[in-house]
Amino acid sequence: MTLSKAKLKDLRSLTHKKIRDQQKKFLIEGLRLVGDSIDSGFKLLEVFYTNELKESTAGKDLLVRLGNKTSNLHEISDREMDLISETVTFQGIVAVVKQQEFSLDSMLENPERKSHLVALDAVSDPGNAGTMVRSCDWFGMDGVLFGTNSVDLYNPKVLRATMGGIFHMPIVEGVDLLSTLSRAKELGYTVIVTDQSGETHCDRMNYPTRSLIVFGNEAWGVSDQVKELADFRVSIRRYGLGDSLNVSVACGIILSSVHRLYE
Amino acid sequence: MTLSKAKLKDLRSLTHKKIRDQQKKFLIEGLRLVGDSIDSGFKLLEVFYTNELKESTAGKDLLVRLGNKTSNLHEISDREMDLISETVTFQGIVAVVKQQEFSLDSMLENPERKSHLVALDAVSDPGNAGTMVRSCDWFGMDGVLFGTNSVDLYNPKVLRATMGGIFHMPIVEGVDLLSTLSRAKELGYTVIVTDQSGETHCDRMNYPTRSLIVFGNEAWGVSDQVKELADFRVSIRRYGLGDSLNVSVACGIILSSVHRLYE
Repeated sequence: MTLSKAKLKDLRSLTHKKIRDQQKKFLIEGLRLVGDSIDSGFKLLEVFYTNELKESTAGKDLLVRLGNKTSNLHEISDREMDLISETVTFQGIVAVVKQQEFSLDSMLENPERKSHLVALDAVSDPGNAGTMVRSCDWFGMDGVLFGTNSVDLYNPKVLRATMGGIFHMPIVEGVDLLSTLSRAKELGYTVIVTDQSGETHCDRMNYPTRSLIVFGNEAWGVSDQVKELADFRVSIRRYGLGDSLNVSVACGIILSSVHRLYE
Repeated sequence: MTLSKAKLKDLRSLTHKKIRDQQKKFLIEGLRLVGDSIDSGFKLLEVFYTNELKESTAGKDLLVRLGNKTSNLHEISDREMDLISETVTFQGIVAVVKQQEFSLDSMLENPERKSHLVALDAVSDPGNAGTMVRSCDWFGMDGVLFGTNSVDLYNPKVLRATMGGIFHMPIVEGVDLLSTLSRAKELGYTVIVTDQSGETHCDRMNYPTRSLIVFGNEAWGVSDQVKELADFRVSIRRYGLGDSLNVSVACGIILSSVHRLYE
């Protein structure tokens, strides 16, 4: 299949947030992400791959699995792939995926007794945000909220850093955190804000069965207005000279302490 | 001061590992890193700053502190700064620093009873390696070993991600891990290798007072030969669907568990 100039331009335009938002689509690249999308509830609209991918064992396997999910599967040239693809390393496969809109209400009203949610308050670095989703996936969080000022979930660098996490749990973006935290508290959630000067050490924190944990911006942390809604402010004890931890590292440490009491 | 073409070329050449290794120097940028270098044992060879930096309050304060440490302090033009600087965001100050060679033997022989060291076995992403140094700094590790196949410590992205950690504890690079781990064991160290299939959960691990903890490559983890030298193989329990954690996140989680028993 040869892609028309207009089609290439369309695909390429999905690297812009504005177009992604309008069309409710996003692009994913590489064996890993495309593979993870297959077993998810996300709809694969179109898939493009190169001859090189088709020739590899892993690529062949993936194409068979994809064949069961979509008929919109097209071989394109390396040059065309280069024009669509964002990454420097050659991935050989891209897919156009329909954005899935999860309901914030159902996420909060989670009928399970246990519900652990994570919110990102203006986390701005794509690598950090994606890595945090990856950790939420590892630690079995029930959902992630991207606050209005956080980096775009469908940014290719965020998606890559999630390592498939985007396909494993509901994530809602563009969330107004102030109203959402108030609503969560009405629904029985304990709001836990991470804060370097928080009075509760995370190892001493007894995470309630319904907890919503908020992580803040790389430079200034969680915003003051959000902090005011906190039931607990947790911190990570320092033993050395460093004056801060990376936010995705802090997130991993806090999440690793959530389950400790249930063991 | 106007920099000659040859001088600019010299400074610019420090972005290459080969030149840094030959000259035993490295470049740091920005208020944060330059500020942290002042109180360290590292020798500042030359500092260059712009007019804009001199006009800011934080910049003025920094220049006063720098004045007490070196006389090799020069104002240069914005254009010259652009030519030397690696970062996209304008930092306004760069310094040439002499590499400090810490002795691996004294690090291992640490006369303190307690000694917690971290080793990087082929960690290849600069952001990960720098973030790991930052976490080691926060958790008060006594030193860091960069194995021969790890990214270069003096890579500007590594330095930036350390957030000053490079100036707070001894770091030895180009370490042959196999011989060093054997030597460490002779000196009473317990070698702990992090491994997703490790049989000891990190929360259950009783870290001895002399511990050397090894983290591995982003894709394949700690090498088999290094694993053979391990006294313990620790893992982080998984509760969700994700199939791995980012190595710098895993490092933060493990280090946060090191001190738990001493509290």
